[in-house]
Amino acid sequence: MGDKNFVKEITDIEEDFAKWYTDIVIKAQLADYTDTKGCIAIKPYGYAIWENIQEYMDKKFKQVGVQNVYFPVLIPESLLQKEKDHVEGFAPEVAWVTEAGGEKLEEKYCIRPTSETIISTMYSKWLSSWRDLPMVYNQWCNVLRWEKETRPFLRSREFLWQEGHTIHETEKEAKERTIQMLEIYQDVVENLLAIPTVKGIKTETEKFAGAEETYTIETMMHDGKALQSATSHYFGQNFTKPFDIKFQNRDGKEEYAYQTSWGSTTRLIGAIIMAHGDNRGLKLPPKVAPIQVVVVPVAQNKEGVLDKANELYNSLNKKFRAKIDDRDNVSPGFKFNDWEMRGVPVRIEIGPRDIENGVCVAVRRDTAEKITIKLDEIEMKLNELLEDIHNNMFNECKKRLEEKTTVAYNLEEFEKNINENQGFIKAMWCGDAECEKKIKDLTSAKSRCIPFNQEKISDKCVCCGRPADKLVIWGRQY
Amino acid sequence: MGDKNFVKEITDIEEDFAKWYTDIVIKAQLADYTDTKGCIAIKPYGYAIWENIQEYMDKKFKQVGVQNVYFPVLIPESLLQKEKDHVEGFAPEVAWVTEAGGEKLEEKYCIRPTSETIISTMYSKWLSSWRDLPMVYNQWCNVLRWEKETRPFLRSREFLWQEGHTIHETEKEAKERTIQMLEIYQDVVENLLAIPTVKGIKTETEKFAGAEETYTIETMMHDGKALQSATSHYFGQNFTKPFDIKFQNRDGKEEYAYQTSWGSTTRLIGAIIMAHGDNRGLKLPPKVAPIQVVVVPVAQNKEGVLDKANELYNSLNKKFRAKIDDRDNVSPGFKFNDWEMRGVPVRIEIGPRDIENGVCVAVRRDTAEKITIKLDEIEMKLNELLEDIHNNMFNECKKRLEEKTTVAYNLEEFEKNINENQGFIKAMWCGDAECEKKIKDLTSAKSRCIPFNQEKISDKCVCCGRPADKLVIWGRQY
Repeated sequence: MGDKNFVKEITDIEEDFAKWYTDIVIKAQLADYTDTKGCIAIKPYGYAIWENIQEYMDKKFKQVGVQNVYFPVLIPESLLQKEKDHVEGFAPEVAWVTEAGGEKLEEKYCIRPTSETIISTMYSKWLSSWRDLPMVYNQWCNVLRWEKETRPFLRSREFLWQEGHTIHETEKEAKERTIQMLEIYQDVVENLLAIPTVKGIKTETEKFAGAEETYTIETMMHDGKALQSATSHYFGQNFTKPFDIKFQNRDGKEEYAYQTSWGSTTRLIGAIIMAHGDNRGLKLPPKVAPIQVVVVPVAQNKEGVLDKANELYNSLNKKFRAKIDDRDNVSPGFKFNDWEMRGVPVRIEIGPRDIENGVCVAVRRDTAEKITIKLDEIEMKLNELLEDIHNNMFNECKKRLEEKTTVAYNLEEFEKNINENQGFIKAMWCGDAECEKKIKDLTSAKSRCIPFNQEKISDKCVCCGRPADKLVIWGRQY
Repeated sequence: MGDKNFVKEITDIEEDFAKWYTDIVIKAQLADYTDTKGCIAIKPYGYAIWENIQEYMDKKFKQVGVQNVYFPVLIPESLLQKEKDHVEGFAPEVAWVTEAGGEKLEEKYCIRPTSETIISTMYSKWLSSWRDLPMVYNQWCNVLRWEKETRPFLRSREFLWQEGHTIHETEKEAKERTIQMLEIYQDVVENLLAIPTVKGIKTETEKFAGAEETYTIETMMHDGKALQSATSHYFGQNFTKPFDIKFQNRDGKEEYAYQTSWGSTTRLIGAIIMAHGDNRGLKLPPKVAPIQVVVVPVAQNKEGVLDKANELYNSLNKKFRAKIDDRDNVSPGFKFNDWEMRGVPVRIEIGPRDIENGVCVAVRRDTAEKITIKLDEIEMKLNELLEDIHNNMFNECKKRLEEKTTVAYNLEEFEKNINENQGFIKAMWCGDAECEKKIKDLTSAKSRCIPFNQEKISDKCVCCGRPADKLVIWGRQY
């Protein structure tokens, strides 16, 4: 199979980004469609990315006192009903278990779309004194939301995630926890996935069902659309009151606890694909790549080549996530394309002449640059290379984020910018949900967030022209 | 609260073992009952045990080429039907999703009781050539089986587990994989959980629904009953034929693949509780204990004590999973009992006189032995101590296993032994399922396995007296 045919199998990224995306998911062997409509099977290569995210994130969580737990996947209908906004937000998209063990159930159970309700019930049981606080619990699990339109990783009926749920003695402590966890998400997305973020608070319209405040990190994809990459919610006492989560405070008085929740999902894998990929295929950030370096022997039937390639692979595999591709039924050219398509950050080619000269050739996935490296310097050089690739990938995304973020002072400019540029719009907003709705109806762009980094670019609302003191980032979304 | 009252809260282990068990689950804060009937919430202390099991087991898996994946939790009814024995085994105890997204579903979905069917469907899609084999996939996930009677960890409607599913080119390779995974389970249970195992093959009656052969590791609990601790199944082509999992073999001919599956669950936490616990409470094997050593300052209000205790804790925490209990609202005596009840392998007491003498006092949970240790030798001594505790706990279980395993040559002896001794019975069996049934009806003891270590204790079936060449281990079970 020639190089050209191979790459032809992937839809052109500029022609049809949605189709390019699903091509990558399938051909890079990240996931596949199943007989369960709207649900995917995550294959080893995709799941290994998730494991790398989990490992990094879970360590960060534990450093700030998070403890892992596990709560039931089934939630009784009566529990889901307890918080009004919450049930309104989630009831339309849940799946119901109505029969079990050969019988029709008296009360039906929903499969958790999120676990605030069942966890709150337990917190109510477990909490009695301020000495029991805080409880900072998290679970890694599956959830189900019956979406109409689904896309692998981005919007799957079932997905994997972590959901943190905490209760605190004071409003101050709970709010600090909300921000602390948001900052961990930012760390993960920027330092592990090499994607720059915009951090801010959601508007009333866009916040989580039942929350007082929802914080978000927003990222920009290849086509300029936004992906909400993780959220952190401050609940105040919205759940602790209906769920009766109270404690005796330091003054001996009864008080309701202050609560947070925060989550991130396998959609982060979608973010990686859509932020970094190109017409050669997937492009994986080195720190999260299941295979960081693949060794491809050239002319592997020549004496000594395979031995030397294996020797190199074995030494690399001690320090990096390495692989050797010694398939004897495909050409080196096929292998080069294959591993590029699958997004491996560095390919190392080694053939008879390289061996003679005591070198190998490293090829970067991000820039296609070829670098000859002395075999006895490979470990140090590869460390540098992976670091540089991470930084370059981050900077490429940052450049796009900056280029595709424009400013609008009125609706006309807003519409023009979003249609010409896709991307993010910076615009002032008066705070009225009607203006948000009008913008959304007109442009399909939603408010992404009120960013922490505020600039006062004008004092008038982009929509209605009334006084406005909030800068909002807007964009179309996944 | 005095020492006596504290321990009184736990039911006497010899009086009512079942009640003792649930006391431990709740009071040691491993798990709690929820509003979802038959399902528990696993609390941080219980979940941390599971994480330690996962970490150890997952590493062993990866060393033998296992790759992690994730398949949908919902399985269409039509898929579950495809393998006759399998559906007969599982259909009665599944939960069905019949409504979702506000509508009644055309085809209902079951929540996975196990994933052979959905994974086999995907294997059929993914497999084409012998070059694609083996596929050695595993998932860590939740499953649901609608049990009538439930007990925390041991038999919960929802539980957490890992399920491995593999397909192979040859019968030989598949059978080797079945045994290889069984041996990993044995390693985990013996070397991590400090519980000796009996390894063997299940009889036809007791094997997994749809399997050709089921292998098991059986362990003995405090009361002499058996706990099936993990199983590994060889399927032959039982699923690959109805699910059409075939490949072009090395001769260019079409052939059905050979399949295995193997699983272990959070019931291992139940095994730890019931194999090791005593009237003081939980007793955790050091390698799996979330807290391996707890530092309890004595007279902590005296100047310098808390500082020194913290210094000791900080240095221990670098090498062990350590904790300091500096609560100021309970006495040291309360803390001693509390951590004994929660099963921490070593408690370290440090008070003003110890500090003066440059020592501390280590107290073993398994033997209650007190050992004075010089502060500058603590790390080395603690390593030795934890190792010794593991070995002692294993040997205690082994002694019980040997003492409570008796031999029976006829039904009368069998009945007498099991009633007097609980425990395991070694007896010869002719191979007839009728004899198994008769023994079960008479004694409530089932065949645990035909152990790998065969002895010929007689040549007659314990039940019917006909010729018998198989030694079987029998016992009542959890």
